[in-house]
Amino acid sequence: MPEPTTPPQRLFSFIGGLQGRWRVTDVRSVIGESLSVTPRLDVVAGDVVELPAGASWLLRGITSNERYVTREEKTTLVATQEGLGRSGSTMAALIPIRKTAAWWAMTQDERREIFEARSRHIVIGMHFLPAIARRLHHCRDLALSEPFDFLTWFEFAPADEPSFESLLEQLRATPEWAFIDREADIRLVVDP
Amino acid sequence: MPEPTTPPQRLFSFIGGLQGRWRVTDVRSVIGESLSVTPRLDVVAGDVVELPAGASWLLRGITSNERYVTREEKTTLVATQEGLGRSGSTMAALIPIRKTAAWWAMTQDERREIFEARSRHIVIGMHFLPAIARRLHHCRDLALSEPFDFLTWFEFAPADEPSFESLLEQLRATPEWAFIDREADIRLVVDP
Repeated sequence: MPEPTTPPQRLFSFIGGLQGRWRVTDVRSVIGESLSVTPRLDVVAGDVVELPAGASWLLRGITSNERYVTREEKTTLVATQEGLGRSGSTMAALIPIRKTAAWWAMTQDERREIFEARSRHIVIGMHFLPAIARRLHHCRDLALSEPFDFLTWFEFAPADEPSFESLLEQLRATPEWAFIDREADIRLVVDP
Repeated sequence: MPEPTTPPQRLFSFIGGLQGRWRVTDVRSVIGESLSVTPRLDVVAGDVVELPAGASWLLRGITSNERYVTREEKTTLVATQEGLGRSGSTMAALIPIRKTAAWWAMTQDERREIFEARSRHIVIGMHFLPAIARRLHHCRDLALSEPFDFLTWFEFAPADEPSFESLLEQLRATPEWAFIDREADIRLVVDP
């Protein structure tokens, strides 16, 4: 009985290297160790067994079921948000974060309390819809250890870059961010 | 910047084959396709790259943060439960389950409503503590597709086997089980 061993279609690989649609304009460390600066970023659906020539790093994550949003919140999100790949979304950001052991030791109600009741994570994100499109990838429960717990991918038009900065500023000021011990911030543009 | 790519210590592999501490006494399909019957089951901490000679199947799962229990429930669980590996626990069961797409499309509050408010999953499990020890492994967000979403490993003394049957009977009668589309049931003993 050979069981399937292909990657789920929910798995994505982000490769910092010499290739890819996205040109890297900035790589910053927000908290902890940074990632090395590379000329380009490639976003690949599926797994990457080996780093391509000239690539410096590979981050993998998987989209999954929602962990915090309620039905009411999701209904609002779905009605407001737009998908990735809009023609006007020529800017993007990849924000990898890792949460502390204290975060992961909490129970669901404790995490939700910090995530939404105290930090308003979902409400903050909603303020920036549909301008800022996003896709969340989970890394913590992959079969191989990953350097981050989450990779969030954002896409937006250049005119909405100030909104994106405001979104990040608001999130980073929340009680939730006290449970983040590594965060990088990679900015990207599509070459015209 | 080579990032670590070893398996997290939370990953476990269950191998149905010719080797292992546990002798297989029964393999049943509860819902959907079964697993093939093998003489023994090996439980390995970490990943297994290749099936050992004579092995028929490999299931992998990772322990993770709690998805539903509240702090109050966890405090009770921690005070009552016992760990795996007790000398009297000479019987074990591996129950792999897969949940439906409808389950995974639900939001956190909807899943918790079915899991505990309507199905009393946590309360039912508590009734059988500390006799029935358990460890839950998640498979759905591993990097490779797995045939099941969860693997639950149970250990108990022979005298508690009727309790274990009662636990399963109660869980399988819950509304939550309507969202399960594949379930196998593998029974094991330690040879004296």
